[in-house]
Amino acid sequence: MKTNTLSVEQLHKMDAYWRAANYLSVGQIFLCDNPLLKRPLTITDIKKMLLGHWGTTPGQNFIYAHLNRVIKKYDLDMIYVAGPGHGGPAVVGNTYLEGTYSEVYPDISQDEAGLQKLFLQFSFPGGIPSHASPECPGSIHEGGELGYSLSHSFGAVFDNPDLIVACVVGDGEAETGPLATAWHSNKFLDAATDGAVLPILHLNGYKISNPTILARIEHEELEQLLRGYGWMPIFVEGYDPTLMHEVMATALDTAVEQIKKIQHDARALGDLTRPRWPMIVLKSPKGWTGPKVVDGLQIEGTFRAHQVPLHPHKHPEHLKLLEDWMKSYRPEELFDKQGRLKTELAELVPLGCRRMGANPHANGGILLRDLRMPDFRDYAVSVPEPGAPGIGDTHVLGPFLRDIAKLNDEQRNFRVFGPDETLSNGLEALFDVTERQWDAATLPNDECLAPSGRVMEMLSEHQCEGWLEGYLLTGRHGLFNCYEAFIHIIDSMFNQHAKWLKVTAHIPWRRKIASLNYLLASHVWRQDHNGFTHQDPGFIDHVVNKKAEVVRVYFPPDANCLLSVMDHCLRSRHYVNVVVAGKHPAPQWLSMDEAVKHCTEGIGIWQWASNDQAVSPDVVMACCGDVPTLEILAAVSIMREHLPELKIRVVNIVDLMKLQPPSEHPHGLSDMDFDELFTKDKPVIFAYHAYPWLIHRLTYRRINHNNFHVRGYKEEGTITTPFDMTVLNDLDRFHLVMDAIDRLPQTGDKGMDLKQQLKDKLIEHKQYIDKNGQDMPEIRNWRWSAGRAADNSRDMR
Amino acid sequence: MKTNTLSVEQLHKMDAYWRAANYLSVGQIFLCDNPLLKRPLTITDIKKMLLGHWGTTPGQNFIYAHLNRVIKKYDLDMIYVAGPGHGGPAVVGNTYLEGTYSEVYPDISQDEAGLQKLFLQFSFPGGIPSHASPECPGSIHEGGELGYSLSHSFGAVFDNPDLIVACVVGDGEAETGPLATAWHSNKFLDAATDGAVLPILHLNGYKISNPTILARIEHEELEQLLRGYGWMPIFVEGYDPTLMHEVMATALDTAVEQIKKIQHDARALGDLTRPRWPMIVLKSPKGWTGPKVVDGLQIEGTFRAHQVPLHPHKHPEHLKLLEDWMKSYRPEELFDKQGRLKTELAELVPLGCRRMGANPHANGGILLRDLRMPDFRDYAVSVPEPGAPGIGDTHVLGPFLRDIAKLNDEQRNFRVFGPDETLSNGLEALFDVTERQWDAATLPNDECLAPSGRVMEMLSEHQCEGWLEGYLLTGRHGLFNCYEAFIHIIDSMFNQHAKWLKVTAHIPWRRKIASLNYLLASHVWRQDHNGFTHQDPGFIDHVVNKKAEVVRVYFPPDANCLLSVMDHCLRSRHYVNVVVAGKHPAPQWLSMDEAVKHCTEGIGIWQWASNDQAVSPDVVMACCGDVPTLEILAAVSIMREHLPELKIRVVNIVDLMKLQPPSEHPHGLSDMDFDELFTKDKPVIFAYHAYPWLIHRLTYRRINHNNFHVRGYKEEGTITTPFDMTVLNDLDRFHLVMDAIDRLPQTGDKGMDLKQQLKDKLIEHKQYIDKNGQDMPEIRNWRWSAGRAADNSRDMR
Ligand SMILES: Cc1ncc(C[n+]2csc(CCOP(=O)(O)OP(=O)(O)O)c2C)c(N)n1
Ligand SMILES: Cc1ncc(C[n+]2csc(CCOP(=O)(O)OP(=O)(O)O)c2C)c(N)n1
Ligand SMILES: [Mg+2]
Ligand SMILES: [Mg+2]
Repeated sequence: MKTNTLSVEQLHKMDAYWRAANYLSVGQIFLCDNPLLKRPLTITDIKKMLLGHWGTTPGQNFIYAHLNRVIKKYDLDMIYVAGPGHGGPAVVGNTYLEGTYSEVYPDISQDEAGLQKLFLQFSFPGGIPSHASPECPGSIHEGGELGYSLSHSFGAVFDNPDLIVACVVGDGEAETGPLATAWHSNKFLDAATDGAVLPILHLNGYKISNPTILARIEHEELEQLLRGYGWMPIFVEGYDPTLMHEVMATALDTAVEQIKKIQHDARALGDLTRPRWPMIVLKSPKGWTGPKVVDGLQIEGTFRAHQVPLHPHKHPEHLKLLEDWMKSYRPEELFDKQGRLKTELAELVPLGCRRMGANPHANGGILLRDLRMPDFRDYAVSVPEPGAPGIGDTHVLGPFLRDIAKLNDEQRNFRVFGPDETLSNGLEALFDVTERQWDAATLPNDECLAPSGRVMEMLSEHQCEGWLEGYLLTGRHGLFNCYEAFIHIIDSMFNQHAKWLKVTAHIPWRRKIASLNYLLASHVWRQDHNGFTHQDPGFIDHVVNKKAEVVRVYFPPDANCLLSVMDHCLRSRHYVNVVVAGKHPAPQWLSMDEAVKHCTEGIGIWQWASNDQAVSPDVVMACCGDVPTLEILAAVSIMREHLPELKIRVVNIVDLMKLQPPSEHPHGLSDMDFDELFTKDKPVIFAYHAYPWLIHRLTYRRINHNNFHVRGYKEEGTITTPFDMTVLNDLDRFHLVMDAIDRLPQTGDKGMDLKQQLKDKLIEHKQYIDKNGQDMPEIRNWRWSAGRAADNSRDMR
Repeated sequence: MKTNTLSVEQLHKMDAYWRAANYLSVGQIFLCDNPLLKRPLTITDIKKMLLGHWGTTPGQNFIYAHLNRVIKKYDLDMIYVAGPGHGGPAVVGNTYLEGTYSEVYPDISQDEAGLQKLFLQFSFPGGIPSHASPECPGSIHEGGELGYSLSHSFGAVFDNPDLIVACVVGDGEAETGPLATAWHSNKFLDAATDGAVLPILHLNGYKISNPTILARIEHEELEQLLRGYGWMPIFVEGYDPTLMHEVMATALDTAVEQIKKIQHDARALGDLTRPRWPMIVLKSPKGWTGPKVVDGLQIEGTFRAHQVPLHPHKHPEHLKLLEDWMKSYRPEELFDKQGRLKTELAELVPLGCRRMGANPHANGGILLRDLRMPDFRDYAVSVPEPGAPGIGDTHVLGPFLRDIAKLNDEQRNFRVFGPDETLSNGLEALFDVTERQWDAATLPNDECLAPSGRVMEMLSEHQCEGWLEGYLLTGRHGLFNCYEAFIHIIDSMFNQHAKWLKVTAHIPWRRKIASLNYLLASHVWRQDHNGFTHQDPGFIDHVVNKKAEVVRVYFPPDANCLLSVMDHCLRSRHYVNVVVAGKHPAPQWLSMDEAVKHCTEGIGIWQWASNDQAVSPDVVMACCGDVPTLEILAAVSIMREHLPELKIRVVNIVDLMKLQPPSEHPHGLSDMDFDELFTKDKPVIFAYHAYPWLIHRLTYRRINHNNFHVRGYKEEGTITTPFDMTVLNDLDRFHLVMDAIDRLPQTGDKGMDLKQQLKDKLIEHKQYIDKNGQDMPEIRNWRWSAGRAADNSRDMR
């Protein structure tokens, strides 16, 4: 198929530009000196440690050069996502060639001195990482952990109708689960209001030391697979650069024109049929243009090209091979004497912000606008007295989120993500004003589906996370609602995002982005239709291993606190906020005024529940999490009824990081404040939402730590009643009282007596639920009765 | 297509059997009494809490009944995997019908009394979970967290040539990443030596409250997708049971015959072309045969059928709907007066172990045979003196694994799994005796690929984990080798497996299976070609949240210890063992005899490195992990050189769980033993492989805990030199010495002086690596010199 997309001269220039990028890539991997090969290469020009990945790089350079061409030709707003982010030498080299690199790092100038620094810094102590890391302009995707390139790309184009993300997908990467399902994102894209993703499957045949699956199935099978995923693949296949430039140019023109047509049909003609978006399959040798055979083994086009194909320090004869290789790019035709890319090649680069390294979408903080936020206080539930019944905290949050969605409908910069759980997590109010975005077929009985909407639901936690990350990285806002147990599915994605936030916070030209907010409803203590497999509150433990400057964890005990916390999270920047909240009817404790004060402080004494006013307490009853708070208060009411002489202090923790020393976390309480709350020497009975050991980990440096007795989830559970879940884990009111008595010898016989009653209660409880399948009335109907004796205390006399 | 696979009578019976299963399913969800509806249904017959999932259940019952038929017809060795494991009522009901349920739970007898218990126990306190949980005979896959059914199924059939796993894949489940890539497992299956997986895509159209993607793309697209994945789909589509029975029966006969043909071609004819295995797409309404319309809303065939479609307690009029629904199955035709399945229906059930609930593969411990193990001592490296150079610990482990693979070649019950990292993790020796199993195309330059082999590599940590789990659950042995950072990808899969182990350990009829062994090489401290994204040692923290009876964590400090530990792990049962080891050249410390002793104790004083013999130490220098051990010993050598009057004790920890109190973990040291090692009052400088806080979490109850000063990874890193990684995290020898001096006032001026020298050293280090790109010679060439002063000490005078 001869199409003459490129003139001879254009083709020539394209090839030269590609050679320049390849040259820079090889230079980065190998050289510490002699960047223009002005003198013969010597062993001292070679870095001592040779680190990096050659194999993926020439293909990515090829793609990048060709994308530059279509950007210019069609004036495209485009960014580049390198799925195999280990192609760092490609993205660094290309942003250097286009000038953006030197703009953010003036020291890496576009001359010989700059070239040398560019080469030296790569994978070098004090230099830059080997991936498409945050240090590289134009990158929103580091690609260290493979699998998320397509999800990030889709996240980036939602609500960015003019943006195209060119997303290079490694054929190895394509074997990962997250990537394999990300192809289906095209069923969620609205051609009218979203941009486009142009996937480029980089079929270079290999991963590390294996071939890839997609490279070793029949051509027909691969085409079926991609069509089955809903794409229209365009194949670019070959080895000879001259032929390949023409085929690639034609393919890209075709793809861009198809994208434009689809968008035109949707936008101007209102065409609502689901488009088959184009994509490109680039089949080219791994390590293309690199050494063919080394030490008798084929390198180019094999797995052996993956990392560094030559080792001049170990094999001196490789030095010559390296020099030949670099010279094969004919650097003298590419760079002038000063080491600057020749003008006729520099002209291939798009202008200004059209350069992919300078596109503001890739530094989303630049585009970030504050959310328009209603006053969260307007959504308050009235709490005439502590313990007033509530409808389920997330159900109260729903209308607040609904109105955020509404207020920002025009800005189109807020979305809610979840794996088909937005309704079941209690956020039904959202659907008053928006829908789930869905571009596949619909049927009469469907509900809340529309081509465009603020809620994104696919049964893949990986997609939800990846989409949201892409959305945030390009300067928008969002929320991920998920079952608590299954958020572990994206543990490693959270890791990578937290690392990204940590690093970007210290790169001066990177702007801060909106926080990544998790709402974990359907938590461990209330699993309804499910059991043990759905009980795992360990995401918190995972999160707190990351840098303190980046992570925040909140346990609002009731709906007003949840509103206050979520308002704070949605306004915050550059954090990961984890919010755990319940969706079931549960007692409410604080009026909105109290809630705001409590959440602002993050931790505090609940005076109304305590009776240690003006004296020092005998015991501190601490709680963190909605269910633990309920059980602690129920325990306190038993204690106040039966052991009225005890002075009890109730402390509630909303902001978990308050517990850490201030040296460990910016939210950490000073020792003095901590001791004021928890005393220096009194027993602390601590009911905690998640695994109890975390509390010890956070507080072990505190003076009173030895008196901390923590209860939490300890991997006991099944389908059972809500209260029984707490009993199975010794977090119930009865156990908590017994724990306190054990640490309060002054309760003497009275304490012993009460313990016996409580033990009996626990037996009664078991018998009751086994017979009736629900909790005892005194549990179901228990209410806090401030000041006076607790209602249910009568049962215990 | 009329095929007459079923005679009229057969069809009639099949339908009756299906109705019986449906009846039992509804009964389980709703009834606590009146199981045979011998009297009119009253509200007191209804459970108080109605929990469970109806929607998926009738389809699964349909499948199960039809599988029974083909099992009998072809005498198949088959098990059933319920991807949407929330179809618990189906698997429980069917195993009850076939008799296996009553065999393991005699109290749930096959009569009216048993029926009542069967119904009552479901999702009831003290009863059974609502999923295909371990309590259910025939299950190897609980299906609580969706996405792993196909991987488990493939794991089960590897090396089980006669086994067929019928794997029901939810159309919602199919949206998850792990499932989306699991379809490709067919490129790894050897038709000659492995069994077959028969996927049944359960296209009931919905997940929780959304339609599914696969149900809302064109038929042609779905077919392309599945063919592109390499399958040969057979569509079974419809609503009318009579028609559907015939179509399904024909489809299953076709599928089974295709499987048999493929296997025959491969086994008898040596046909090596990659087969296109058959699969079934069952398109039927969600909640099939259930209530059609309730409260004016369509239920059957919509998302509304997902959970419990009727609520008689809330809506009394639903009671009648429920009764009508149950009666529509005509129970009187299905069960005799005693409540026993009628004989003519019971005859549809396969015999004995052919019943899917009784198949021993689904209780793998029954089939488990010990591995044949060479003596690991034969692989010992000679360690003439502590600090002798080593080639990289995993490279020493390789030959041991190689010979295990060889010795068990005939048993075919050992496999090694990894995401294309077995070579790069240093286990190249395996390829002396076996290959990577690979059934896709090959090319001349490929290495170590063969249709059958002991190594399984796909670039999907999810597949590696899922395959291995399936392999173990069916009674075999294996190992997962993975980059340490990316093992987080399967955090949630580990969770589910650990929960499975915990629960099955307490089910008397379940036998113990081989442990799940993780070898985490390429760990945080040595990342070579990669940087910050590849640094995360937090899997340990994740693991230790699970039940102590199930988890074990090992940090062998050198190759002989690694051999000893791995030998232990591979012999162990029903644990998850995490082993962290290095692959880079590193010093060796213990002879094999010493290593065996040390690893058996799990923790111990290294006398040869200590100088506190016969006196009490001034300081304990503790280390856990290969790199921390190196740095502690280097620190000790500096201290012994410069502060010779100090009495230093070196403690090394192999078995992390030794640190916990014995009340928390069976391996935990008694307080007395702990205090003997760590003293009651001396400073402990603890160099730890992973996040330092974990050590505090494990030791906070120990008397000397306040003197523990722990260094570890604190999220500082990039591509840099190996030693600089420790410097960035304050884990290097120089920081460790300074830490010790800070806690040893008795070192006085001499200590101050040394600190200053070390600070200078750190500056020198930075300058050196920035200039040279590798560590200072004194670091690279450092060697422990027992007794006498450390070699490098001269540099410091
Ligand atoms: C999730 C994950 N698992 C394993 C690795 C280790 N790894 C680094 S590169 C690579 C091969 C990548 O192959 P491909 O995507 O085809 O990229 P390319 O061939 O372009 O280098 C692997 C397995 C990783 N980076 N991420
Ligand atoms: C990984 C994961 N995410 C979310 C859920 C919550 N969940 C339970 S059932 C379900 C829908 C399942 O749909 P499908 O697989 O089609 O099963 P079926 O329609 O047969 O019930 C979801 C999302 C889960 N169990 N696992
Ligand atoms: Mg590749
Ligand atoms: Mg479904």
